[in-house]
Formats: sequence, structure tokens, C-alpha cells
Amino acid sequence: MARKIKLTVEYDGTDFAGFQVQSQGERTVQSVLEQAVAQIADAPVTIRAAGRTDSGVHARGQVVDFDLDGRIPTERIATALNGILPADLSVRRAEEVDADFHARFSARLRTYVYLIWRSEQRSAIWGRYALWVPEELDVDVMRRAAGSMVGSRDFAAYANAGGDPGSTTVRDLVRFDVRRLKGGPLIAVTLSANGFLRSMVRNLMGALLAVGRKSEPEGRLLEVAETLDRALNPFATAPPHGLCLLRVDYPALKTPGSRLT
Amino acid sequence: MARKIKLTVEYDGTDFAGFQVQSQGERTVQSVLEQAVAQIADAPVTIRAAGRTDSGVHARGQVVDFDLDGRIPTERIATALNGILPADLSVRRAEEVDADFHARFSARLRTYVYLIWRSEQRSAIWGRYALWVPEELDVDVMRRAAGSMVGSRDFAAYANAGGDPGSTTVRDLVRFDVRRLKGGPLIAVTLSANGFLRSMVRNLMGALLAVGRKSEPEGRLLEVAETLDRALNPFATAPPHGLCLLRVDYPALKTPGSRLT
Repeated sequence: MARKIKLTVEYDGTDFAGFQVQSQGERTVQSVLEQAVAQIADAPVTIRAAGRTDSGVHARGQVVDFDLDGRIPTERIATALNGILPADLSVRRAEEVDADFHARFSARLRTYVYLIWRSEQRSAIWGRYALWVPEELDVDVMRRAAGSMVGSRDFAAYANAGGDPGSTTVRDLVRFDVRRLKGGPLIAVTLSANGFLRSMVRNLMGALLAVGRKSEPEGRLLEVAETLDRALNPFATAPPHGLCLLRVDYPALKTPGSRLT
Repeated sequence: MARKIKLTVEYDGTDFAGFQVQSQGERTVQSVLEQAVAQIADAPVTIRAAGRTDSGVHARGQVVDFDLDGRIPTERIATALNGILPADLSVRRAEEVDADFHARFSARLRTYVYLIWRSEQRSAIWGRYALWVPEELDVDVMRRAAGSMVGSRDFAAYANAGGDPGSTTVRDLVRFDVRRLKGGPLIAVTLSANGFLRSMVRNLMGALLAVGRKSEPEGRLLEVAETLDRALNPFATAPPHGLCLLRVDYPALKTPGSRLT
């Protein structure tokens, strides 16, 4: 009998052309993962993800689901997949969940973190995972600008084209904060929302960096949002390599295991 | 006139055959750095390091020194070198110091951190920088065993062959502690000493991992130290990729700038 499997997945996005399968047959997280799952399932499989991360974006807690027909016990799936997957992609956890679980549509909250390496000189170690900003940044201004965006609003001005046509562009941003880690060169920006529009995190980060550099006043983030028009958004999209999908939260899961009791 | 320059250097050790120049012309941190410095100095240069890290070991605060004859202003050295160096090697800071400064012999304290990824499944992101340990580790036992080693003692039993012949094997280990980061899978072990013998950190870590796995009683670290004999040390050397040279401390530096006042 088919089982619905939920995987929590980690990847270094550097050498992936994003999550989603591309027409040109590029190396994507989805394609590498589907090949590995097909190997343990002995059948082709299609994977659905909580967040379709862009090319170069990392993940520590991406969530995917798929239907599995094979006989492999659920508790052996993670180890079996990690034996097949390349070093830059790993499965943190595999669980059996209810048949109506949907990695994307069941998700209640998604949390991303964007790392900035704020130093005159670049970092050999953090260069893969943090955006290097050689100029001064005013973290207090960034914190205030980020805080002003928290709440439920229409983020159309921060969404790139290519989202689901006709669907709402209102999102509930419940967290957008900025903190310097241990007084060192790393700055972590954390964003949580019920969902994010296409490139929304990187567009918000581009705006936040502009106000941090004082090239725009801090009130501009909100003004741009109020235009509801992507064409009126003057900010650059921040590069992908600073971004990481940290976790995806779901309502308390009913697991099929509970049927047994 | 020649200046003595001190550099604070960061590297991802994955693709380096250690710090020191090898006879076979391998890619070492020293050789790559010397080539870059020679380019800005327009003359060959020899670099001395605080810690001659093994192949695969990382550094966030390695310190090196060299004599520079060229005209480039000191405040432009870091930026000039970072423009030449590959992505996995960077200069955090360049300073002019007194002519008698010696990166190795002037150092008062060296601090290393060893990262462990303690989880049933491997990590795609931390795999480069932390040792994956799938078995349970008793962090309390590790903490006690580490604490028992703090102090000034003869570490001959934890030193690999190849150190300076005839020199003392007594070192003052002032810090050796173990902490779990934010209750997650990462465990950080920090070691500070006036100096470390060859592979001493990795030999101590091998011993600490054995007691953490309960394959040896926690008192064994000290017992092995007391033999003063490397041949009687039963512990494996821990792999290099979990290790990072965090910082090197010097007595308050007199800078040549003080001559100007």
C-alpha cells in the first residue's frame, strides 16, 4: 500500500540550479532527490516542496512529500537516501504522514534567514553562505525598517513575475528582524510568514540593504509596498547565496502510526 | 625600507594540502599566500605562521608575518591581496608591526574549535566543517574528561612525530570545554593553549570522542597523558575537517606607528 512520506531536507545551494526541475535538464534539488527516491522505491516518483527555492539558495529545513509504494521501512528511508545522495544534499528526517499532507499547501509558517558578512574584507569561509557587504550598514535603521513591514499586507510590489496567476498577493509577515551575531561581522536577518511570493525574500532584502546603506530613507520599504506595483519598486534583488530556508512549520501532524493504537 | 607585516588570515582548508609548503609542490596555504604577496611586493617573500595547520584544517584567525619591501601602503594590503587570492583564502586584516614580531614565537595563546555534527543523519551544509558522529555521545562525560586535562603538563603521549627535535613537550592547556550549540546537533569543543604539539588537538579529540562513545572510561585521557609515550596512546586521531584555528593572541603589540608620536 502506498505511504505518504514527508522528508526534511538540507542542501548547499551553491551547485544547484534551484529546487524545481527545469526543462533543460539542469542539476536541481528536485531532480537529484527524485532520482534517489526512485532508486529506493524502484519506481518513478514526483516530489512536492514547501518552498521552491531559487538557484543558489540554501536550505536547512526544506520539506518535501511524495507517495512511496516500495517496501523499505520508513525508519530506514533517511539513511538509505543519504547513502545515495551527493555530499551537498542530505535528508535530516523521514516520517510517514497522513495521505492528505501537502508539503506546500499544508505549511503554516515558513522561516528564512539571510546572512550578511559586513566587513571591509571578504570571508573565505562565510563567502558561500553570506552576502559580503564592504560598506557600512546602519543596523538600527535596518531593524526599524524591517519591523515596519511586519503584518498582513499585499506584497505585490515585492513579487517577481511567475507566481501562480490570479492568486492572492497578500501575505502575513509575522517576523522580520535583524541582529548582529556576537558583535562580529555576521548579521542575520530572519523572516517568517505563512508564505512568500516569488523572490519576495530577496526583494525585501535588497530594499533593506539600500536603507542600511542610507541610499534610501527607511520609510521607503513601506511606501514601495503601498504602490502594489513591482514596476515601481526601485530596489535591486539581493543575491541568492546569503539566503537559507531554515524551517517549515505545519499544524500538529496526525501520523498514520496513531491508527495502530 | 622593509616593513614587518602581520596578516590575519581565513581559509576553508578543504582544498588545501595544509599550511606549510610541501616538497611536491602541492597547493598549500603558504604557497598560495606567498605567490600573492610576491605579486604585490614585486619580489619573492617567505611567510611564517602561528600554527602550521594540517591538511584539511580550516582557519578563521590564522596569523602570519613577512617582511615587505614594496611601496604599497599598509592599509591597502588586505584589499590588494583579496583581489588576487582564490575564494577559499582571504585576508581579514593587515597591520604593520615591530621588526621583532614573530607570528609563531611571539604568540601567547592559540585557540582552536572542533565541531561535531551529532545526528543519525549527515549534514549537507555542516559536512565540510564538522565531524559527523552518528552514534550517541555523552556530552557530560566529554566535558568532565576535557576539564581533567586542563593545566600545564607533558603532552608527549598526544604528539605525533615530526615536531621540533629536543624541544619541550610541556604545554599549558588553559581551556578545553565542550558545549552543545542551542540544543541542536552541533557540539563545539574549544581548546586554548600557549602552544600545541603536532596533531595534539586531533589526538585529544580522538580520545574525547572515544570516552563520549563510552568505549573508554573518562579517566583514560589523563592516564594516557601520564605514560608520556605516544606508542601507548590507543586513541585514533580525529579527522581534520572538524577543526578550525579560531584565533591567535599576542602580547599587546607595539606598532611602528607609535614611533611617529
